Amino acid sequence: MAARCWSSFLHCFFDYETPKTIVIYNKGVGSIFRFIQFLIIAYVIGYVCLVQKGYQETEAVISSATTKVKGYAATNTSALGLHVWDVTEYVIPPQGDDSFFVLTNIIPTPGQIQQACPEVPHPSSICESDDDCSEGRSPLQGNGVQTGRCVNYSASVKTCQVLAWCPHEDDSNLPKPALLLKAENFTVMIKNSVRYPKFGFSKKNILANISKGYLKTCRYHSTTDPHCPIFRLGDMVHEAGADFPTMAEKGGVMAILIDWSCDLDWPEKDCVPKYSFVRMDKSTHNTAPGFNFRFAKYSNNGSIQSRTLIKGFGIRFDVIVFGTAGKFSVLLTVVNLGAALSFLSLVGAVCDWVLVTCTAKKDFYAKHKTSYLTEEGTGEVISFGKSYGTS
Amino acid sequence: MAARCWSSFLHCFFDYETPKTIVIYNKGVGSIFRFIQFLIIAYVIGYVCLVQKGYQETEAVISSATTKVKGYAATNTSALGLHVWDVTEYVIPPQGDDSFFVLTNIIPTPGQIQQACPEVPHPSSICESDDDCSEGRSPLQGNGVQTGRCVNYSASVKTCQVLAWCPHEDDSNLPKPALLLKAENFTVMIKNSVRYPKFGFSKKNILANISKGYLKTCRYHSTTDPHCPIFRLGDMVHEAGADFPTMAEKGGVMAILIDWSCDLDWPEKDCVPKYSFVRMDKSTHNTAPGFNFRFAKYSNNGSIQSRTLIKGFGIRFDVIVFGTAGKFSVLLTVVNLGAALSFLSLVGAVCDWVLVTCTAKKDFYAKHKTSYLTEEGTGEVISFGKSYGTS
Amino acid sequence: MAARCWSSFLHCFFDYETPKTIVIYNKGVGSIFRFIQFLIIAYVIGYVCLVQKGYQETEAVISSATTKVKGYAATNTSALGLHVWDVTEYVIPPQGDDSFFVLTNIIPTPGQIQQACPEVPHPSSICESDDDCSEGRSPLQGNGVQTGRCVNYSASVKTCQVLAWCPHEDDSNLPKPALLLKAENFTVMIKNSVRYPKFGFSKKNILANISKGYLKTCRYHSTTDPHCPIFRLGDMVHEAGADFPTMAEKGGVMAILIDWSCDLDWPEKDCVPKYSFVRMDKSTHNTAPGFNFRFAKYSNNGSIQSRTLIKGFGIRFDVIVFGTAGKFSVLLTVVNLGAALSFLSLVGAVCDWVLVTCTAKKDFYAKHKTSYLTEEGTGEVISFGKSYGTS
Repeated sequence: MAARCWSSFLHCFFDYETPKTIVIYNKGVGSIFRFIQFLIIAYVIGYVCLVQKGYQETEAVISSATTKVKGYAATNTSALGLHVWDVTEYVIPPQGDDSFFVLTNIIPTPGQIQQACPEVPHPSSICESDDDCSEGRSPLQGNGVQTGRCVNYSASVKTCQVLAWCPHEDDSNLPKPALLLKAENFTVMIKNSVRYPKFGFSKKNILANISKGYLKTCRYHSTTDPHCPIFRLGDMVHEAGADFPTMAEKGGVMAILIDWSCDLDWPEKDCVPKYSFVRMDKSTHNTAPGFNFRFAKYSNNGSIQSRTLIKGFGIRFDVIVFGTAGKFSVLLTVVNLGAALSFLSLVGAVCDWVLVTCTAKKDFYAKHKTSYLTEEGTGEVISFGKSYGTS
Repeated sequence: MAARCWSSFLHCFFDYETPKTIVIYNKGVGSIFRFIQFLIIAYVIGYVCLVQKGYQETEAVISSATTKVKGYAATNTSALGLHVWDVTEYVIPPQGDDSFFVLTNIIPTPGQIQQACPEVPHPSSICESDDDCSEGRSPLQGNGVQTGRCVNYSASVKTCQVLAWCPHEDDSNLPKPALLLKAENFTVMIKNSVRYPKFGFSKKNILANISKGYLKTCRYHSTTDPHCPIFRLGDMVHEAGADFPTMAEKGGVMAILIDWSCDLDWPEKDCVPKYSFVRMDKSTHNTAPGFNFRFAKYSNNGSIQSRTLIKGFGIRFDVIVFGTAGKFSVLLTVVNLGAALSFLSLVGAVCDWVLVTCTAKKDFYAKHKTSYLTEEGTGEVISFGKSYGTS
Repeated sequence: MAARCWSSFLHCFFDYETPKTIVIYNKGVGSIFRFIQFLIIAYVIGYVCLVQKGYQETEAVISSATTKVKGYAATNTSALGLHVWDVTEYVIPPQGDDSFFVLTNIIPTPGQIQQACPEVPHPSSICESDDDCSEGRSPLQGNGVQTGRCVNYSASVKTCQVLAWCPHEDDSNLPKPALLLKAENFTVMIKNSVRYPKFGFSKKNILANISKGYLKTCRYHSTTDPHCPIFRLGDMVHEAGADFPTMAEKGGVMAILIDWSCDLDWPEKDCVPKYSFVRMDKSTHNTAPGFNFRFAKYSNNGSIQSRTLIKGFGIRFDVIVFGTAGKFSVLLTVVNLGAALSFLSLVGAVCDWVLVTCTAKKDFYAKHKTSYLTEEGTGEVISFGKSYGTS
């Protein structure tokens, strides 16, 4: 009895079931079969492996960047006199973040103090009597909070009085050309450190083969110096297809894109950053391009606080680091090969259909390939003329 | 000889091997077969293609955003008198980054100078003699570095003397309601520019069909104006389910989520941002909600530097841009179809098992489907009654 | 006629086509078959399911963080006298962003005003006559814009005169040890709130089981207090393998990595942040480590603007939140199982090849497994001795 169980188990374990097959020498079907096989193998090798690198798992980059701007510009204006601008003055904030702003043009409004003064004339501020103004109202186009009185703005125009930092800023006359047009020659050094934690990979944009001497004098150039981490502001704006003088005048937003996409199956030294530059505030038909913000310097004259309001125009540079690293992964290799194998099995179904449908000797092939069992009889019925297969 | 080789090669190349099959008309097994086939096809069409879009490759968004807040608020306090607050004063930092802070409440401590003064009484600062204090110690709950002396804080209490900016800040009386409660009506315009570099796609949140006039007057509303890029602060806080007056008083952190998830197989114009708002400092049982930080304004009176310390409460808004774009990918289509095909082939194995196990005529089917070869004999042995297949 | 159509349709629908198979009891082939089957099943269970979690779809984390530094330090220098530093003074910017800078060392240059003064001597500024200088030139190593005159720098050296903020900064004598060496004991509390929008999951780094009392006294420690959100600056620098006194002196950049990688198929409470610390400005052979920037405090003495320039050294801490969450996905389960199934079908092909090539009774097996049909004849030709199969 035990011997019988053992024998049964051995059969269960070692029995190998394999389909009976017929081999047909038919040039038509054989060609189709080989051709589709070739297509699938070409797809796997060419597209999956070479083009898409489907055998790799990927990870997005983690980055930390610091920036340091250098350069001086001398300006001679009636408001400031002869003045030399250094980094401390024109880079806001000064910390060297991955987003920094270079001031290129200013509209200063010195001597503002908190007081009541007539609003600048515009449709919602022009009034004829106090009834047209209401205390506490502050229209968005306005410059302060209305006191409810209607006062003379000039000899001919009356406007609502507002409580505000007066005198109001007049930003209609933007200095042309931009005050700090020389910012074109300023340079910025970008130190960027990236990590791919899943792959235990970390690297800096200052490559190991860059010498200290080269770092002192080099300027980034897309073809001649693609790995120099020092960028001339004018070059970046130019590469983005924008015009520096125009941008300096009204401001703008530039993205410094650093692409760290890497194939980590290759040596580490082949993983190098690729820089590109894009203007992010590109004009659309509904909004004017440009970038500005207001800041103020406060001072106390006795007990009265006064300030100089500055509407600063300039270029904000956003260092945007992106990229995905790929590395060989068993899982994804199996998935992609498995999917291709599935299609190989599909080839058989296609060729079988061709064999029993389109070939000259289809009935002969069908007879030998397929047998029909009917539920009614117990004998094997081979149908010749008619075929209603399910394949 | 050459002819023979050629013939052999032709056979190798054009021979087509295909399994012999039997066709069985059995309603039970046929139904199971068709039903599972239907399930798999429904899964591929319904779930893979329509729900999950498994045929698409995806990429995470790259973004750059600028913000501009507008609005005025008048306050009348004993410390500041009548004062109008403008953007320059209440938005910190003023640069219009994708993370900005709107000041809503303040506790000012004017006239601080560097000097030795008694510490505020708390368990670790109350002392009876100099022995209870030690020079150089600075407990975290304290306000400075101890000098080692025990001095009178009031007539009845003695505390350790500290070197610090004195007088100390007293932040126990938070102004109620918040000083700048009117911040509820302030508006912020968000300019957001996104890119999907792999797909060569870039777009702005100010859509092309938005007119200049609409931009001047519109306010975002989730149903009536979902594409207006100008947001009322109070609306955002309200949509996040928070109460503005409470949040203005103690501060808070809001996330402005911009979802750029897009199906790039559709026209570009269908790719529009979806805004949502979440309060990020939501109270848990162990930490009080709120957001504040301290900053100071320094001034020199003669040779002595003094400062006004300001504990500023307010709402920090983080513009968080996320989303993935999907686009048709041959690779992923093949992978998903291939996987489904694999399961189709599994159907056969299941039905075969049903056929030779559960049907009435299982022995009859088994006889015609499977032949048993034994190693011992050389003849074909067909087993009828017993089946120990491996399938 | 209709009956015949119906019958034909029934046959189409319920006919089940299945390959004829032979079962072979051969220990060699059976073992290979079972072994490969075992390998594939082990791969699916062990690697796909347990190691790689291939059945999960993933999403990258969305995060918002605020930081709050605490601590005091007293310094006694000739320039500043006895001075206590508090957060407001040494944290720049003060807002508590996810990137904050702690000032640890300074080189102040007080009393700078805009004027013409001789440049600091270096190869490009030393001159003998006015001809060596040119008006408007501003070399990058210099401190201003040249006026075109050559003037005495000292009794023995003449340099080009520059228009600049004078006197120039002399940053050759870095204070040693660092002024704010005590920053080692400062602490920072990090509040981090994360979201996985696809999975509707959100969590904070201050876990629900942390009590208010614990939060007041705890300090992060990788083994004893891994979930305390309060970090001692010195500990973080130490864990990153750096030396605090050196780093405080010349500055540096630290990354506080918060890894939120989570398996969301498990209960929410198991999803906890893992902290790690990395120094990002690690010295390579071509650049000196360190981090510094310059900022200035402006004041007006009468009509002349003067400033104190401060070259601030310190440690910038970048809170970098990353991680991917995984959750069970039907799609990916099907894809991975399907791929494995494909390989199972490949096993058959391999074993068939072994069967008709390497076994002792290969001819006997081949005869029963494969029939050859020739195009020429119409009879079934079974080839015994020679096999030129395509498998």
